[in-house]
Amino acid sequence: MAVATDRKLEELSINSIRMLSIDGVQAANSGHPGLPLGAAAMGYVLWTEYLRHNPSNPAWFNRDRFVLSAGHGSMLLYSLLYLTGYDLPLEELKNFRKLGSKTPGHPEIHMTPGVEVTTGPLGAGFSNGVGMAIAEAFLAAHYNRPGHNVVDHRTYGIVSDGDIMEGISMEAAALAGHLALGKLIYLYDQNHMTLAGSANVSFSEDVGARFEALGWHTVALDGLDPDDVRRGLDEAIATSDKPSLLICRTVIGFGSPNKANTFGVHGSPLGPDEVKATKEAFDWPTEPAFYVPDPALEVFREAVPAGKRLEADWDSAFAAYEQEFPDLAAELKGAIAGKLPAGWDAGLPTWEVGSKIATRKAGEAVIGAFFEKIPTFIGGSADLDPSTNTGMKNAGDFENPNLPLTDKVQGALGGEWSYAGRNIHFGIREHAMGGAVNGMAAHGGVIPFSATFLVFSDYMRAPIRLAAISQYKSIFVFTHDSIAVGEDGPTHEPVEHVMSLRLIPDLTVIRPADGNETTAAWRHALEASGPTVLVLSRQDLPTLDTGSTKAGLDHGAYVLSEPDGEPDIVLLATGSEVQLAVAAASTLAGDGISARVVSFPSWEIFEEQDAAYKRSVLGSEETPRLSIEAGTTIGWERYADASVGVDRFGASGPGAKVMEQYGFTAENVVLQAKALLGEST
Amino acid sequence: MAVATDRKLEELSINSIRMLSIDGVQAANSGHPGLPLGAAAMGYVLWTEYLRHNPSNPAWFNRDRFVLSAGHGSMLLYSLLYLTGYDLPLEELKNFRKLGSKTPGHPEIHMTPGVEVTTGPLGAGFSNGVGMAIAEAFLAAHYNRPGHNVVDHRTYGIVSDGDIMEGISMEAAALAGHLALGKLIYLYDQNHMTLAGSANVSFSEDVGARFEALGWHTVALDGLDPDDVRRGLDEAIATSDKPSLLICRTVIGFGSPNKANTFGVHGSPLGPDEVKATKEAFDWPTEPAFYVPDPALEVFREAVPAGKRLEADWDSAFAAYEQEFPDLAAELKGAIAGKLPAGWDAGLPTWEVGSKIATRKAGEAVIGAFFEKIPTFIGGSADLDPSTNTGMKNAGDFENPNLPLTDKVQGALGGEWSYAGRNIHFGIREHAMGGAVNGMAAHGGVIPFSATFLVFSDYMRAPIRLAAISQYKSIFVFTHDSIAVGEDGPTHEPVEHVMSLRLIPDLTVIRPADGNETTAAWRHALEASGPTVLVLSRQDLPTLDTGSTKAGLDHGAYVLSEPDGEPDIVLLATGSEVQLAVAAASTLAGDGISARVVSFPSWEIFEEQDAAYKRSVLGSEETPRLSIEAGTTIGWERYADASVGVDRFGASGPGAKVMEQYGFTAENVVLQAKALLGEST
Repeated sequence: MAVATDRKLEELSINSIRMLSIDGVQAANSGHPGLPLGAAAMGYVLWTEYLRHNPSNPAWFNRDRFVLSAGHGSMLLYSLLYLTGYDLPLEELKNFRKLGSKTPGHPEIHMTPGVEVTTGPLGAGFSNGVGMAIAEAFLAAHYNRPGHNVVDHRTYGIVSDGDIMEGISMEAAALAGHLALGKLIYLYDQNHMTLAGSANVSFSEDVGARFEALGWHTVALDGLDPDDVRRGLDEAIATSDKPSLLICRTVIGFGSPNKANTFGVHGSPLGPDEVKATKEAFDWPTEPAFYVPDPALEVFREAVPAGKRLEADWDSAFAAYEQEFPDLAAELKGAIAGKLPAGWDAGLPTWEVGSKIATRKAGEAVIGAFFEKIPTFIGGSADLDPSTNTGMKNAGDFENPNLPLTDKVQGALGGEWSYAGRNIHFGIREHAMGGAVNGMAAHGGVIPFSATFLVFSDYMRAPIRLAAISQYKSIFVFTHDSIAVGEDGPTHEPVEHVMSLRLIPDLTVIRPADGNETTAAWRHALEASGPTVLVLSRQDLPTLDTGSTKAGLDHGAYVLSEPDGEPDIVLLATGSEVQLAVAAASTLAGDGISARVVSFPSWEIFEEQDAAYKRSVLGSEETPRLSIEAGTTIGWERYADASVGVDRFGASGPGAKVMEQYGFTAENVVLQAKALLGEST
Repeated sequence: MAVATDRKLEELSINSIRMLSIDGVQAANSGHPGLPLGAAAMGYVLWTEYLRHNPSNPAWFNRDRFVLSAGHGSMLLYSLLYLTGYDLPLEELKNFRKLGSKTPGHPEIHMTPGVEVTTGPLGAGFSNGVGMAIAEAFLAAHYNRPGHNVVDHRTYGIVSDGDIMEGISMEAAALAGHLALGKLIYLYDQNHMTLAGSANVSFSEDVGARFEALGWHTVALDGLDPDDVRRGLDEAIATSDKPSLLICRTVIGFGSPNKANTFGVHGSPLGPDEVKATKEAFDWPTEPAFYVPDPALEVFREAVPAGKRLEADWDSAFAAYEQEFPDLAAELKGAIAGKLPAGWDAGLPTWEVGSKIATRKAGEAVIGAFFEKIPTFIGGSADLDPSTNTGMKNAGDFENPNLPLTDKVQGALGGEWSYAGRNIHFGIREHAMGGAVNGMAAHGGVIPFSATFLVFSDYMRAPIRLAAISQYKSIFVFTHDSIAVGEDGPTHEPVEHVMSLRLIPDLTVIRPADGNETTAAWRHALEASGPTVLVLSRQDLPTLDTGSTKAGLDHGAYVLSEPDGEPDIVLLATGSEVQLAVAAASTLAGDGISARVVSFPSWEIFEEQDAAYKRSVLGSEETPRLSIEAGTTIGWERYADASVGVDRFGASGPGAKVMEQYGFTAENVVLQAKALLGEST
């Protein structure tokens, strides 16, 4: 085939992406045509020549991952998925942004075959890709053997000016640079235009220099020139010791005669007239919409047989690996399938009634008991291991093994510094930590967790929400869970946080009351299919007499202690306040008032129970209920008639004194219970 | 005085900071001694030789601002405040981190004279300082006249490794660099050590190069050497066209014989033995604690007369300015005092019953009506002006006037590019936007606002919380406030957000139902002393017949329409759902059911009303109440017996269709009302 013909076909193929995208946006009369027009050449080169994927099996484990961090450019991705032969019919592109279509406004995992992660909130995808590259590096280091690279793929992404401006991307980029994630390659669609105007109204930095400072390899290129994109990708692939940013200069809305290089083309349809004018400018038939020339489709569809060959080759390679390393292969297969190894929960710790332990410390013991049995459990904290108690002793640190450091040891958790290390030091980068954990979960093969103080859940609320939308199996540990934090004062004392996390749909929040509930909480998190938030105390808590109800956490709430006969009042408490309910019930009993104590670690799990069970815990409608939780009272009206809670900010002082001042004493619970009962106090 | 004596006195002074700090932490048996030991020389040089402040009047408007972004090092700041003669007696340092002291664990504005902003959550202070520098630059450009620099001060800060790692700092640094805020000078305490270990477990980037790429001037220096600190500060001051970062190498816990340069000294007291050993190492009397040599105290206390002179000089300068520019001077004085100009609210828009307007659009009209009358009202969006409708037409863009751009105009809002411009382009940097707005509010003289989509309030939840703790008069505008956003899908459709903002103590959240309520909401925000969140719709809403109750918003909730006789049911609705309640009430009336309609724009304002008013709105306990809000139902049990709400994520589709599918139709409200009444439907 002559080069001239190739060039023509190449242009036809690139323009197919463009025209499908503007037709999709126009049909929806909503969406973002600007990015697909500008980034089509990047998408074409990457998806037809570099991306190792199998359109027939989007779940093939060793595929290259592709993240469209600029999720608003979703029509680019949908066009590529359709063209390369994924199970996304043209009809779905015509239904772009319609209810019930497989082509929502922003890419959503589980909605569309081939969409790896849910993106749209800027920077989210950027951080997800870093998590995917971490997962790949870990699994490769852990499972590959000489001559057997069964885990070996790249993570690609298209990122935008908007992504680059977001702090989460900067955090994630710093982490990726530090970790020297050489198989991470981002194509930055540098069109210098954002929704509100020319990006230079707010954005005049030297992006390349900034990424270089963070340890990235950068290549500046012309994103409209396929050959230059190839040059960049080749260079990035050849650079194995650093992540790569290809700074691809493009023109937003490229080819639109009247709207190219305007901010108006970022987020609004071209309009019928400009669609027509654009097609004419590209020498494209103006009718029908969604037209793709057969020769172009053929080029893209080569991905189907190529993908099958790639997966078949991998299957053979895996079979050889399995032959030689049957145990490892079985372990990896289980991890890919998301199964916990048999016996993983043997020896989970229990605590004796009367002993005391902070639930963060209990959590440490729980992790210590299972982490060796679940070799793909990885994670860490935002620089708070000694406080969150989430380090895995001697499990190694997930680090660039080539880092030339003289003092690798201080503060590390023991074991090697390598990509096989399981303790991830995210740095003081909560937002990117959340995004990376989501990326690891989306990648699969690993069970990832993060940890920081509960008050800093505010820094990572966006990725927690995305974990819930996407049902990533991300485990978010938050310690220092109330005003009992004490001396650090109101900026470090959560008040509204537990409730505000409960407000997020499809997210399970668990606030265990003691060591044994903490064990049960971790079990729930590990066995769940979606995300879990674990809320743990800084301070010691007494081990409760859960008696025969120790499976109570599985129901979200359970009767911890029951008076003889019908209760006069039901006390609902969570976490560190359950002990107060127990003590108050005892005092009330002495005063002739019978109180049921309910431990209520998880609203979401409780809501899944049947009506009869709920009634058996909450009691009759007529029995007054008092909730006790060191957090906002808003929301507790769902279950309680009155609440002991915190509806103002905390204060700096010793934790026990702060708790006392804010009414968290058994005496005050008794008082409030009596007030609710209308008794003289 | 011989240099040798000077040097000795200098060392004595620096060590006074160190010894006070470790004694404070030890007395509290809680806190962070590491930073004050390492950064004492930086603090000494800055506070005794560079910082232009008046300890006798911490509110002097033209003072240099100082931000301890590394808020955990609060004992450094408290020591400096005591030593330089602020109204902070030594007794307060002895009560560090005790309940009721003026020395909380992290600095809190309003708690301690001389504390400019509440810090502790890492990166917050960094972003606040950028806001302060913006406020200063704006006020200087707006009010100064040749020969009359009545607003002219610097903003200094001490930032840490932890600050530098946070995304919010990166966003804020990018913004400051873009804006060329030359009077912003940060001393970066580079001790390479964080709470969990050597910072290099997660942090190996070239910080200097990164800041240079963002447009900063950087100086590397020895932070333990006062002369080198002076060199850095001199160079920073001489650099007027860029913000400066002084990269001060220090040793965490400097001088502690056994704990210096360990991560253990970051956040734990030295312990009595190590306090003693440290004092001995510094040749310091081990007893009594909190000892300050008189000569050292004298050095620091020179700040008192010096500060009085500075303010007196400024008073004279201001008098001269006032003489020449009486109107400007009066305007500036009013702005400093936080007063709104007389007549600011003349001509605020109203809308006719039956007309339709999106509340974001109504907000634009309201801003348009008052912004020229309030010349210190400044702000902008995170790159969403065309969507949030918060731009001030022809008010100029707040930009570096020297920016060599050829295409300044596109997307800008008209008017000059200068520091007197009032439209701030924060870039796609929500977190820093929130922090900058807080810094502007803390600076005073301006009334700042931010704007973005409601779903992205998640990105800036931490600064919103800090605004509430600190009672900054920050105005946070959030548009696109429900699943009615439509096509953009679940990642862009708020569900839990309005309620989760209500959970934050001391924060007023307002979700107006129509144009007239939007006018009232803006009025409330401008007249408030603390922070306000305005929640506005993307879609058109009908103007309601608020009749004589138009002052209803001042009560948080009010009866919008009342049936003849006692209502059978009360419908409580907010924002875009009030129209549904009105329509449903009409249908219900036809079915012989009398319904009261309550518009409920603000929970917090309603909670401030007396019991009688509340009863007059909510009705008797026996009357069933139904809430209607396109958001989570958790929380509505406070007021309602049943709720029409959204307890799952949204979906991508045309907004009206999504609303319909999720039950936001008058028909469904009627259905739910009847169900609540137990009537056959």
